[in-house]
Amino acid sequence: MSPTVPPLAAKLGGLKSSAIRDLLKLTARAEVISLAGGLPDAELMPRERIAAAAEVALRGPGCLQYTESPGWAPLRDVLAERESARLGRRVPIDEVFVTHGSQQALSLLAEVLLDPGALVVVEDPAYVGALQVFRAAGARIVAVPLDGEGMRVDVLRELLARGERPAVVHTVSNFHNPGGVTMSTARRRELAELAAAQGFWVIEDDPYGELWFDRPAPEPVATHSPNVIRLSSASKILSPSLRVGWMVAPDAVCRAVELLKQGADLCGSALTQQIAADLLADRDWLTTHVDHVRGVYGERAKALVHAVRTGFGDRVVCTDAAGGMFVWADFTDGTDTQLLLPRALEAGVAYVPGAAFAVENGYRNSMRMCFTTSEAAVLEEAIDRLATAHAG
Amino acid sequence: MSPTVPPLAAKLGGLKSSAIRDLLKLTARAEVISLAGGLPDAELMPRERIAAAAEVALRGPGCLQYTESPGWAPLRDVLAERESARLGRRVPIDEVFVTHGSQQALSLLAEVLLDPGALVVVEDPAYVGALQVFRAAGARIVAVPLDGEGMRVDVLRELLARGERPAVVHTVSNFHNPGGVTMSTARRRELAELAAAQGFWVIEDDPYGELWFDRPAPEPVATHSPNVIRLSSASKILSPSLRVGWMVAPDAVCRAVELLKQGADLCGSALTQQIAADLLADRDWLTTHVDHVRGVYGERAKALVHAVRTGFGDRVVCTDAAGGMFVWADFTDGTDTQLLLPRALEAGVAYVPGAAFAVENGYRNSMRMCFTTSEAAVLEEAIDRLATAHAG
Repeated sequence: MSPTVPPLAAKLGGLKSSAIRDLLKLTARAEVISLAGGLPDAELMPRERIAAAAEVALRGPGCLQYTESPGWAPLRDVLAERESARLGRRVPIDEVFVTHGSQQALSLLAEVLLDPGALVVVEDPAYVGALQVFRAAGARIVAVPLDGEGMRVDVLRELLARGERPAVVHTVSNFHNPGGVTMSTARRRELAELAAAQGFWVIEDDPYGELWFDRPAPEPVATHSPNVIRLSSASKILSPSLRVGWMVAPDAVCRAVELLKQGADLCGSALTQQIAADLLADRDWLTTHVDHVRGVYGERAKALVHAVRTGFGDRVVCTDAAGGMFVWADFTDGTDTQLLLPRALEAGVAYVPGAAFAVENGYRNSMRMCFTTSEAAVLEEAIDRLATAHAG
Repeated sequence: MSPTVPPLAAKLGGLKSSAIRDLLKLTARAEVISLAGGLPDAELMPRERIAAAAEVALRGPGCLQYTESPGWAPLRDVLAERESARLGRRVPIDEVFVTHGSQQALSLLAEVLLDPGALVVVEDPAYVGALQVFRAAGARIVAVPLDGEGMRVDVLRELLARGERPAVVHTVSNFHNPGGVTMSTARRRELAELAAAQGFWVIEDDPYGELWFDRPAPEPVATHSPNVIRLSSASKILSPSLRVGWMVAPDAVCRAVELLKQGADLCGSALTQQIAADLLADRDWLTTHVDHVRGVYGERAKALVHAVRTGFGDRVVCTDAAGGMFVWADFTDGTDTQLLLPRALEAGVAYVPGAAFAVENGYRNSMRMCFTTSEAAVLEEAIDRLATAHAG
């Protein structure tokens, strides 16, 4: 009898691996300076403070058991307090839901908010993790471009005027990945007003908001409308291995997410949630720690931007890097960043071509550079190498 | 302007909270002895060994960063070695995929293996976590009953003979939750042969296999056919808060799961995966630890079964509890366990009525009792109280 190997689901046909992940595999050679990654710097993560919190948590058996699907209650308390301060209103614990990183919040929300064929508006260039989730949910995706003030809300308004009715508008409001820009206060208000008037959800995806360099990010879009679901995360300020992201959303949304979370993975880790709660509640320590991370990233960002502007002059226009982890740069001389990449790798530097973030097409003259994991001198060397590749 | 609160997805209409979870909230009163839960005993979890492993992992920054979607490679190595021994063949690392508990493996597999409307065969009474996932995937579900030798493979054979073509057959092969029974070796072979001949997947869901009391469970169904995807977990032998489950599956299945895992939550926790790897690789310690857990659970199981048989005589037939965490009991006198429950709670004991596990209907005279978290004397008291309620 020759066994028949069963098939996978036919619907998987359209599933693609992330171009960025595939690229990262190619650029992992030690001699290449990679600006292609999107990781926070592990050396800046509070290892000793985490170890101390782990030691305390593990003094009792409470951190070893299954925990509640919406998250360990004392962590939700800490987050509710934190988000109340951020949003300028009392956020009750029932409106706080802990997820396995904010990526899980996105994927559960896609199930909770979207019927197949529902319209989702995303920013272009886009956070690819969101694109992946909305595509998997069978949504129809329409892109609205970014400019220096974030999402072009005027373009969204035109879409609405043409009769488009989005179920969800997704925005990375602060220090955009990959676009590097932050939505202005005026646009935040306008977006919130449209959401309230037209009855759509806004998902405000904010993993980078704490990582401002010169001045804090504006008030969250969520301060301006109850239709905004706010996502945040401990990954960029503490450590991704805690796998603690969270969502602030109306109770009905949280309860629907809770039912799906039970099927998805039952619950998070009581151990890492207790560690996260300990660190997030330790306010003075946290302020000092995040200030330090901000300081180091800010210095690196400025070094990168300075090197790009010095090295390329007016042949490249790049964002200011006022926070977050990324600089977005456009070649003004017609350089195709996908064609440049092999030469760049040969010269010993990697970046992600802009096309990887395009919702449809475009951004062929653009690239995303991450400044978090290299020191200033290394970033300068990277841009020297890039200039060599560009000249070659 | 009165704001319009946006709707949730219409498809959520059918989503129901787990009846068991709702019940657990009602039975959490301190004076109630609960046999209703399904938790391992946190007091038996290796807290000090976990603390030592955490301390070692946190000596370097490697455990703080994002990790690979299929799991931290050294953990996958340890699991590959472990599963190779269990399955009697060399399992390559590419066929091992770490998930956030085995529940996540189930939910990702449902997406990878099932198109909407696909047929899934489950056991009846069913593991409700699997039912929830298969229902959410839009599968058509057909139940095959259990008996003392596990899944009635003869009933499955009849289904196939009638032309039914399942995409997936799901089985909890060892110490069934809730049914308490273990599939016999003859049935395992027969199921594997049917899978190979008819070209369907078997998901062998095995979180309890290590928890045998008198003799080890038979060889996994996966030893008999390449069509079997085997799930296991560290939750019941170490701690659920590690959130480490795993899947052994053909490379093509693992790669499809990998793409979905990226969208679902990017990756697991490098910290808890390093802790799990440390403990699972420490073979002598692990053997001693699991032997101890087995010993304690075995004693509790025997105490519960003895109390039921002594207290109810031939008015109740219950499983032998040869392993795992549960005893399944059927009243032979027509007692309706849903109607008995309020009286039982009043008498100070809780269980889960069988109807909660029915795929369609039935099991109105049955109940599931968990013996893991109470000592023998408490279990005896629980059955005394149940007898009082039953007599009342």
